[in-house]
Amino acid sequence: MCPSPGTEGVERGYVIPIGGAEEKLSNPTILEKFVKLCGGENCRIIVIPTASQLDETGPTYVDLFHELGAGDVVSMPIESRSDAKREDYLSELKAADGVFITGGNQLRLSTILGGTPVAQAIRWLNAHGTHIAGTSAGAAIMPEHMIVGGGGGSTPTEDGVTLAPGLGLTNSFIIDQHFRQRDRLGRLLSALSYNPFVTGIGLDEDTAAFIDADGVFEVVGSGAITVVDPSGLEYSSMGHVQAGDPVSLIGLKMHVLADGGCFDSRIRVANMP
Amino acid sequence: MCPSPGTEGVERGYVIPIGGAEEKLSNPTILEKFVKLCGGENCRIIVIPTASQLDETGPTYVDLFHELGAGDVVSMPIESRSDAKREDYLSELKAADGVFITGGNQLRLSTILGGTPVAQAIRWLNAHGTHIAGTSAGAAIMPEHMIVGGGGGSTPTEDGVTLAPGLGLTNSFIIDQHFRQRDRLGRLLSALSYNPFVTGIGLDEDTAAFIDADGVFEVVGSGAITVVDPSGLEYSSMGHVQAGDPVSLIGLKMHVLADGGCFDSRIRVANMP
Repeated sequence: MCPSPGTEGVERGYVIPIGGAEEKLSNPTILEKFVKLCGGENCRIIVIPTASQLDETGPTYVDLFHELGAGDVVSMPIESRSDAKREDYLSELKAADGVFITGGNQLRLSTILGGTPVAQAIRWLNAHGTHIAGTSAGAAIMPEHMIVGGGGGSTPTEDGVTLAPGLGLTNSFIIDQHFRQRDRLGRLLSALSYNPFVTGIGLDEDTAAFIDADGVFEVVGSGAITVVDPSGLEYSSMGHVQAGDPVSLIGLKMHVLADGGCFDSRIRVANMP
Repeated sequence: MCPSPGTEGVERGYVIPIGGAEEKLSNPTILEKFVKLCGGENCRIIVIPTASQLDETGPTYVDLFHELGAGDVVSMPIESRSDAKREDYLSELKAADGVFITGGNQLRLSTILGGTPVAQAIRWLNAHGTHIAGTSAGAAIMPEHMIVGGGGGSTPTEDGVTLAPGLGLTNSFIIDQHFRQRDRLGRLLSALSYNPFVTGIGLDEDTAAFIDADGVFEVVGSGAITVVDPSGLEYSSMGHVQAGDPVSLIGLKMHVLADGGCFDSRIRVANMP
């Protein structure tokens, strides 16, 4: 699904995928920046802990965001598709400056939220200025095409990745997370070789892409983001390779960007400050 | 060390790094091709099992190469630097059409062979037409700069790789092995960012690069070779990053090549048949 069309003259909110395991106590740079972006003490942040099956996930983030100075933080424990239609939840969402989607299982997120009024509300909100952050599974769900799973290792294969429709907050990027920690280059390359129109970003843990309304992101955090740009692809064997066999890809461009690095998806150019 | 200069009019032998765990029984494509290249039933192959500490490693490869039709195969169990000076070994080596260096520990290889008459003989032989193959540690030792170790994961770091001088059979490539299986992109990128003059090749298991006298290689085997070409590097933070921190790299080119794919290191161009 493409991002919600938005309204002329109204700036879109940031889309902020985080690679999982973001620092919460000693140096919570990413979460701090998110709270500040939302407006600090005057802001309202909604936490959606649907991906997680632990009762404490929502309240933990509520406490965290309060400690970081957010004025009003609410956890919205959407557990089922009928929860995702609740009128009280929808009116709570309306006033949100920021939405934070926690980690867990991204298929749980997409099966519970997909196509519901809450999903529509999140899409609409983002198109009208609300910032949406998500960590781990909450990052995976953000793009039009979501990576559900796949084998480890650096070599792409025909069956090396499973995709599902995501929330569609961006269609410029395909997002993988826990990237360095779980050896996911191969599955990101598999996803890109299915259809090389997007840019792939692999987010290390404790590392976020703050993607602005123009599709330009800045890297924040202690790890790096691996950017794979397949726009110059000269050859791919994805169309005729046997299941399980490695896929040949010629002409990929790659950047590794640490904190402060930027990438402009419109012109596919990376730079460092 | 640069490759041995060779003699005008005499073609160099192939340099054949293999990513480890090459198929030996049901479909030994790589070893078969090596034997054929050496001359089949008329050839002499010397096996150097120095990297391994298992007594059966040498004899196992001797049996294998015999089964694959090699005429004369000898294991040369060099266990010490004094072994690497033995006159009988040096005269046996003289008549070799092929040398095969087994897997094990590449530091054992470099500490025992480095600078000895056997190492000089291998370099001279390759410059005068003898094909040198090596698997795993035996592949790592081949280039001028050998990857000894480093952490897993896809992100390069300042201390992400340990290098040591290798045999110097090629200075066009830096070679990593068990690439997909052991998640080694980060350490290959670390090595390349130290000095981006070479091309990095990451060899999957059961996958070989047959590098010819002109520095062109063909991929043979069931996996893939990840080629990282840093010649267009626009930015690297390697020079000023803190130990352990991720290194930013902008402008890498990457290809993934399966069986039949080729790469020409002189012009840094990849293609598929």
